[in-house]
Amino acid sequence: MAKEECEKDATCETCNQSSSCDQQEKEAHAQERLQSNLSHIKHRILVMSGKGGVGKSTVSTNLAVALSQEGFSVGLLDADIHGPNIPKMLGIEFQHVENFGKGMIPVEVFPNLKVISMAFFIGDPDNPVVWRGPLKHSAISQFLGEVEWGNLDFLVVDLPPGTGDEPLSVAHLIKNVDGAVIVTTPQDVALLDSRKAVTFSRMLSIPVIGIVENMSGLECPHCHKEIPLFKTGGGEKAARDMKVPFLGRIPIDPEVVTDCDRGMPLVMSHPSSEAAKAFQGIASRVKTYTGFKKIEIKSEQEKIQNQLRTQEVKG
Amino acid sequence: MAKEECEKDATCETCNQSSSCDQQEKEAHAQERLQSNLSHIKHRILVMSGKGGVGKSTVSTNLAVALSQEGFSVGLLDADIHGPNIPKMLGIEFQHVENFGKGMIPVEVFPNLKVISMAFFIGDPDNPVVWRGPLKHSAISQFLGEVEWGNLDFLVVDLPPGTGDEPLSVAHLIKNVDGAVIVTTPQDVALLDSRKAVTFSRMLSIPVIGIVENMSGLECPHCHKEIPLFKTGGGEKAARDMKVPFLGRIPIDPEVVTDCDRGMPLVMSHPSSEAAKAFQGIASRVKTYTGFKKIEIKSEQEKIQNQLRTQEVKG
Repeated sequence: MAKEECEKDATCETCNQSSSCDQQEKEAHAQERLQSNLSHIKHRILVMSGKGGVGKSTVSTNLAVALSQEGFSVGLLDADIHGPNIPKMLGIEFQHVENFGKGMIPVEVFPNLKVISMAFFIGDPDNPVVWRGPLKHSAISQFLGEVEWGNLDFLVVDLPPGTGDEPLSVAHLIKNVDGAVIVTTPQDVALLDSRKAVTFSRMLSIPVIGIVENMSGLECPHCHKEIPLFKTGGGEKAARDMKVPFLGRIPIDPEVVTDCDRGMPLVMSHPSSEAAKAFQGIASRVKTYTGFKKIEIKSEQEKIQNQLRTQEVKG
Repeated sequence: MAKEECEKDATCETCNQSSSCDQQEKEAHAQERLQSNLSHIKHRILVMSGKGGVGKSTVSTNLAVALSQEGFSVGLLDADIHGPNIPKMLGIEFQHVENFGKGMIPVEVFPNLKVISMAFFIGDPDNPVVWRGPLKHSAISQFLGEVEWGNLDFLVVDLPPGTGDEPLSVAHLIKNVDGAVIVTTPQDVALLDSRKAVTFSRMLSIPVIGIVENMSGLECPHCHKEIPLFKTGGGEKAARDMKVPFLGRIPIDPEVVTDCDRGMPLVMSHPSSEAAKAFQGIASRVKTYTGFKKIEIKSEQEKIQNQLRTQEVKG
């Protein structure tokens, strides 16, 4: 009976009727709340990689910012519980998440770009999150079900690398994922793992939007000759072999590192650099993939507002 | 009673008496076998990082090879279940592990360098290992307890990145870890995670041997000017801040990538390069740390044998 009377949009922890529900009812309620929360999100994009350190978080961040700069409402979920670095890349690492009765309010970068990350919940950044699978599952479940995302055009989920507990949790919790963007670098060891990520997506019935080749080629800033640091072209070959689209190459740009470290994504700080153009190209492919081409014009005003805001931040 | 009569050095799966033992007895037996197996290993070194893609596997591989080149008996355990890349870096990715009644026989690179990795058990390299925590724990437990390591001077364990299930499992399973080598790159985001790894080690009472700064500085191969790709010096600063030793810088060397991809660690293919010297320096620090300085001379003969073997492989 309690089920009928309880506050449908409150979490069981804050609900007055909580004591009259058993565990099974509470779980059903959590699942219901999660799906209701996600129902306000038009498109769900996962950014994944088979291997760490290939720039997955950099791609997620620049993709989310690029989409928000075009006026879309974007949520960015940092699902890396152990190494939550997205807030650092956006210069919001010292922000905290507020609780607002019914759920958590994500941190706003712009009015149309909201972020949630484990980093907001760790007091001392030197402290590791030493959690096993079930606890991580529970944290990700809360990031999906108990965060007040509001109406979003896109939720970009930055998954931790690999094919383990966290990617599995997210895939099982978010139903109807639109697709996955798989990030790799051109080294053989990274390519090997990116192929695993494609197979992993297929096993979970998540469509692959395509493969991005990051850290692809470096030009010496002094003599402007090409340095074959990680080779190039492997991502395109892997995409061809695995029969998924190739979304483009992002050259290595020392500015990316500096910008990441000072909390300013490249698409904001150097929008006309080769690397930023590559990120914008990926955003454009994601838009096309989800059939979002026509909405762009509608939100031209918001786009201008964001550009002004970007200039303020840079200034 | 069965406990007294069973074959003490066989696994329960292959023991005739298995049906007369209950689950608790079997678990006790597995733990006993694990500790007995590890008792033949003099020193246990963990290589860890807070963040993926910082070159942890490259450091583990070159450290293990450098120690084996000096004549020590070395085991290299690739504990990265989802992205087991060490066999690829040693050119042994198509080898298979043999079962030998009592346990698994690790793959030999040299007579005194043995490797075990999930990669030897995956048929198609495109197939991901989609396992949650408990299964991963069980795999790592078998790599420790059921692999016929024999007598080893060093077991180098290449942990997966982060502070999650796998590093926890290894730390709980291997008792008396001598120490951990923590690998980072000089970007702020990597440094942030390496500090977490130091705290994680302390929480688990694992002494920190020190921090290695990988991908530290790049010289243009054409004009020989310095390219500030990932900055330098952050690893040393992190070590100072966290009050742990600094083990040295490894410059970025395009040869490292090429060598990794063709299965030839740099300390073998380019032993006099700056990066190889840095790896040898780390091996030397590890030796000193574990008090292994004097044994080096004893095995001079083996050292020569290995050098000859290395030349054969190269030729």
